[in-house]
Amino acid sequence: MNHQQSRDRAASGRQPVVGMVGAGQLARMTAAAAVGLGIRFRVLAAAADESAAQVVADTVLGDYRSTEDLMAFAAGCDVITFDHEHVPQAQLAALEQAGHVVWPSAAALRFTQDKLAMRGRLTELGVPCPRFEPVESVADVAAFAGSAGWPVVLKAVSGGYDGRGVWICDDAAAVADVLAHGLSVFAEEYVPFERELAILVARSPSGHGVVYPAVQSVQRDGICVEVLAPAPRLSAATAVAVQRLGLELARDLDVIGLLAVELFETRRGGMLVNELAMRPHNTGHWTIEGARTSQFEQHLRAVLNWPLGSPAMAAPLAVMANVLGGTDPDLHGKLNHVLAADTALKVQLYGKPVRPGRKVGHVTALGTDLASLRDRAARAANYLATGSEEPAAEPVAGAGRPL
Amino acid sequence: MNHQQSRDRAASGRQPVVGMVGAGQLARMTAAAAVGLGIRFRVLAAAADESAAQVVADTVLGDYRSTEDLMAFAAGCDVITFDHEHVPQAQLAALEQAGHVVWPSAAALRFTQDKLAMRGRLTELGVPCPRFEPVESVADVAAFAGSAGWPVVLKAVSGGYDGRGVWICDDAAAVADVLAHGLSVFAEEYVPFERELAILVARSPSGHGVVYPAVQSVQRDGICVEVLAPAPRLSAATAVAVQRLGLELARDLDVIGLLAVELFETRRGGMLVNELAMRPHNTGHWTIEGARTSQFEQHLRAVLNWPLGSPAMAAPLAVMANVLGGTDPDLHGKLNHVLAADTALKVQLYGKPVRPGRKVGHVTALGTDLASLRDRAARAANYLATGSEEPAAEPVAGAGRPL
Repeated sequence: MNHQQSRDRAASGRQPVVGMVGAGQLARMTAAAAVGLGIRFRVLAAAADESAAQVVADTVLGDYRSTEDLMAFAAGCDVITFDHEHVPQAQLAALEQAGHVVWPSAAALRFTQDKLAMRGRLTELGVPCPRFEPVESVADVAAFAGSAGWPVVLKAVSGGYDGRGVWICDDAAAVADVLAHGLSVFAEEYVPFERELAILVARSPSGHGVVYPAVQSVQRDGICVEVLAPAPRLSAATAVAVQRLGLELARDLDVIGLLAVELFETRRGGMLVNELAMRPHNTGHWTIEGARTSQFEQHLRAVLNWPLGSPAMAAPLAVMANVLGGTDPDLHGKLNHVLAADTALKVQLYGKPVRPGRKVGHVTALGTDLASLRDRAARAANYLATGSEEPAAEPVAGAGRPL
Repeated sequence: MNHQQSRDRAASGRQPVVGMVGAGQLARMTAAAAVGLGIRFRVLAAAADESAAQVVADTVLGDYRSTEDLMAFAAGCDVITFDHEHVPQAQLAALEQAGHVVWPSAAALRFTQDKLAMRGRLTELGVPCPRFEPVESVADVAAFAGSAGWPVVLKAVSGGYDGRGVWICDDAAAVADVLAHGLSVFAEEYVPFERELAILVARSPSGHGVVYPAVQSVQRDGICVEVLAPAPRLSAATAVAVQRLGLELARDLDVIGLLAVELFETRRGGMLVNELAMRPHNTGHWTIEGARTSQFEQHLRAVLNWPLGSPAMAAPLAVMANVLGGTDPDLHGKLNHVLAADTALKVQLYGKPVRPGRKVGHVTALGTDLASLRDRAARAANYLATGSEEPAAEPVAGAGRPL
């Protein structure tokens, strides 16, 4: 903490300082929550025009892979947290060893960085997952398919290529194409799921945890396009069971902050854990207006070891639709129409340059009639993306492949 | 707009730039709303540690009384607006003459800067106000009291002294004390009101206006301590009448942005206009969580000539209580207790050094039972201010003097 920062902080009665590594839209929305709580919020950005860097007064430019940059960033912060899971283990360890409070910890984050370790740990914990197997060759995958059947899902242990880390392979030739890239992968059974659900939990260092209502996420071409809160047609018993699963996972993996658990609901009604994330998550954006405490405020409260806020819904139903970039770079030119057409719709724009398929914003509709909310949200998101009045294609739960 | 600003803006698809003169808590909360709308938000601050300057990336330091500073600040902004009403008319005129879009306009703002002009204009418009009279001497005031009765309220035409601009005088000696300060005042009848109400309107350059539900404000020692939304025990007909009054005043005074109208409800049920403000207002803080569109988002939408948002309530009732500084400078040390005691309460802290009686934050409770909401809000605000568990004294509508 430099002299000016010390002085400012003293003048304002010991405002806590939270440093978030990463300056994408998750950091941007966390910044808005920090304003209300009187928190000094700092982001580590790669460039001054990144989404959060545009709005955060205390933006530090640096490289999240550089121990030196991370240590300089962390100086004066009460806690360090993340808007992505890409800080390498060695750098996380260096921060922790230097005495910085880092939430989630390096040990917890490992289970989002190494998917094979995550699958192994979940299996130890008895958590239902798709069948999986470490593989090194086409023959290994073919042997796995001998019992699990084709297609086989290949997942990169960490990272991927061409922006992807998951491939559905119908045969050995497709497997060979993936393996040719030389990255570490494992095989997973293809799950013909009915739909995808998500659980969002917050947990504080004191061990206190809260869980939001389970939601349904609708994916198109492997990208989340829509989230329905709460998940429709979920029995009370199942809702409680998946909420408990989320709370137990947060405890067993010792996650501090947010934990998002993505689930497959299989056609026989079972639940399998698909992915984990330890940060604010796209499936929780509806909480900004739809819950008493937004996921962004909740994350700040959790990593500061403050009492957690009520996760209760602020309306009977909430539907969030992502705005995926189209070919027109000018979102604001279309915003006027959307705001005029639906005066109660909430819009969040991330300040990111538009690229086709990129998440550049989202919209949220609150109310009581699911079909109407989905229509309002989809129309607005589609118009912002395409400038077209055509309603978005109606997504059908459970149709298509799991990616 | 400098080169860097041009580049950033182009990269993000023509994000609008709103410049707000002033960097208090109103600018701070407007900044949070700007984040969600993808607006580039700039503030003109007197010092780098002011409430909004702590959180706004694009903070410019300068003096709002300096035409040079204002012109430099306004360069590159699509619209200039205000978190206070203190920019002098000459400086406002200079901005307008240079071609800047300034909302509210200098002509509208005059009615918040010159209270005698405001009273005169409202009278022309046939709007019910307390009786008033320009005065220059004790004899003038005594003559006014001859027909209006004692006590007489003296109001500074603009500004004031010792942080006050309104004095209740019981006799000629008290009048002489005020007049001794040599400032321009006028006399107003003392209204034994039942309670104070407030109306909040937003109006855009297109002429479109929206109005929030009428609220009741509770004052203690001349400071707003509590706001109840909607105002309890208001007949539907009266609620509509005061909302219409607000919309008509915004139109007749040609206000662009927000207009807050403070009203006295007299003991006979009539309504008199007490004060006007043309900016986000303390009586509208409940809208952050309590309305579909917060007053801060609404102000931005209005001054940008975007379609206005729904002013509908997001819960049946909302109660806001101001946190007035006590003797302990450390708000955050007490925040933990408040968050633990009431997980659904919403807290906003302004990052301002604590001084006795100063507004340093507010809390909002949403729900269905007015007595319970008032108790929750008052307890939390009182604890943050004093560190005491004693519930705040129960405010009684209509008791005490009007200041």
